[in-house]
Amino acid sequence: MKALVYTAPETLDYREVPEPTRQADDILVRVEAVGICGSDMHAYLGHDERRIAPLILGHEAAGTAVEGALRDRRVVINPLVTCGRCSACLAGRTNICTSRQIISMAPRQGAFADLVAIPERNLIPVPEGMDVTRAALAEPIATGWHAVVKAAALSHQPLAECDALVFGGGAVGMSAALSLHAQGCRRIHVAETNAGRRETVAKANIAAVYDPLSEPGPGENAVDVVIDCVGAKATRKAGIAAVRPGGVIAHVGLSDGADGMDVRKMTLQEVTFVGCYTYTMEDFRASVAAMESGALGSLDWFEQRDLADGIEAFDDLLQGRAASSKIVLRPRGGD
Amino acid sequence: MKALVYTAPETLDYREVPEPTRQADDILVRVEAVGICGSDMHAYLGHDERRIAPLILGHEAAGTAVEGALRDRRVVINPLVTCGRCSACLAGRTNICTSRQIISMAPRQGAFADLVAIPERNLIPVPEGMDVTRAALAEPIATGWHAVVKAAALSHQPLAECDALVFGGGAVGMSAALSLHAQGCRRIHVAETNAGRRETVAKANIAAVYDPLSEPGPGENAVDVVIDCVGAKATRKAGIAAVRPGGVIAHVGLSDGADGMDVRKMTLQEVTFVGCYTYTMEDFRASVAAMESGALGSLDWFEQRDLADGIEAFDDLLQGRAASSKIVLRPRGGD
Repeated sequence: MKALVYTAPETLDYREVPEPTRQADDILVRVEAVGICGSDMHAYLGHDERRIAPLILGHEAAGTAVEGALRDRRVVINPLVTCGRCSACLAGRTNICTSRQIISMAPRQGAFADLVAIPERNLIPVPEGMDVTRAALAEPIATGWHAVVKAAALSHQPLAECDALVFGGGAVGMSAALSLHAQGCRRIHVAETNAGRRETVAKANIAAVYDPLSEPGPGENAVDVVIDCVGAKATRKAGIAAVRPGGVIAHVGLSDGADGMDVRKMTLQEVTFVGCYTYTMEDFRASVAAMESGALGSLDWFEQRDLADGIEAFDDLLQGRAASSKIVLRPRGGD
Repeated sequence: MKALVYTAPETLDYREVPEPTRQADDILVRVEAVGICGSDMHAYLGHDERRIAPLILGHEAAGTAVEGALRDRRVVINPLVTCGRCSACLAGRTNICTSRQIISMAPRQGAFADLVAIPERNLIPVPEGMDVTRAALAEPIATGWHAVVKAAALSHQPLAECDALVFGGGAVGMSAALSLHAQGCRRIHVAETNAGRRETVAKANIAAVYDPLSEPGPGENAVDVVIDCVGAKATRKAGIAAVRPGGVIAHVGLSDGADGMDVRKMTLQEVTFVGCYTYTMEDFRASVAAMESGALGSLDWFEQRDLADGIEAFDDLLQGRAASSKIVLRPRGGD
């Protein structure tokens, strides 16, 4: 089969590779759409010590099951492979399974390929009438959805009464803003430094969008909930300044280091800071359902390209030449 | 009246001062017992920009109401004066009232004095048979109690199923350990560097006590709940290392800065970090009730001295010559 292989920092090779090896419970899925995530870019740049070349990246995938009970059905892939037996899994908190794996990280290859191996229990049927390319958005959407679910659970007020601030207007930030809206929040700010992304988020018409480098945003002690989809020193600092006493910060992004925490304010004003990693299977299903119901809007904030043109797509993203929040690659080997 | 007045960094003066001025709703309480808190020491050293000399420190007080409905009754003082009208107060979260005041911080004088002014609504009757000196422990106990209540609310398991780690074996750390035990936790570790304090905590017979400078403690990813009553770089670092995926850190101490946060682990492992400040009135009442019921043990981990000897007491604490977790000062002007 063909795959886009990460072979060395800043180097990808679109080439012929063997079909994936199945682990226990795995079946093969023919990939039809797979998004490029910030973490793929991070790995491509050689910054992710967990993703060592040579490796097939890509974990935001939808396609058609090749075998098993869902054979020939369109499916979305939950890329997080969990044991189902540890106390976290048994409590439904599959995302903190102590032996979790994710496709695109050893020992599992990713989905920038014609085929990917994944346990059948990780598949969710694509709802009738949903385009397979849109379906591939389920993974970043579930990440934003999960952060909003966590923030809502920790907030002392319902989201309908909250002012919220999202850092980042990429796919996860956009998904967090849409999830806040779908879960009842009506006063949403989104901070994004890239003008093209600001425009994309603004089009969704659910949030006040601003450039944190030149505009003031909501101000100090002005929001109840912060969803930090960037996770950098500057956003942590700005998020803690912006949150009201007793408020909640859901920290999703993994940009850099540990700086920017104002532990004194967090303590004196009882701020809750919660780490958010991916999603549970429940969040993933809820996200697909919300996508189907229309609660997350038209979901047109992506562009699609051939997987064969993936190298150029990575370069465009790196150079800031991609205006949309997401590039979805489409393998053609399955056609 | 006589008072111990903080007049300049590292300088106290036991001297005659005017009786306190009452603000609206205030009544006078004759102070009979008042503990020395770490924050009093912090102010005494000139490290608290909110507590400017000249000022009467002291906020852990019990005594007898001089006037009002509780006249001549023994009372414990909740030193946190809140508005009762803001959304935080109306939700019972009085400790994050946006206009909160505390005695021993301008505009309110503290309780290292014969008399203190405080709203009548801040008084809780001392239960029958409880010594007034013990009653003065209610304030640090309520601080530990509150942190445990918050941690329990955020934990995904009941405290009875949790391994817990408390940093600090002073009055608040001791209170947190006792509160964990009273609220059902049976696997409690306490880290304390001072040998005398370790001995005091060990006597309570509810926790495994260790010296974090020379002993390993519970290890990495070994506890579900951390109560950090120190709040220093070293304890934050050790707390985040010790907490299991999905666990909770309640951060009470205000020792220093913002360092020690492992934001990457907190994000990837969904750790919840919550700031804890003092207590709500509900926590305060619950603490007094738990003290009365015996759920917090014998409460004999303090020593008492005359307020007139307060200068020496501060010096002993500073030089590490006080073995007990708490020194309670006893004004004699009321006798």
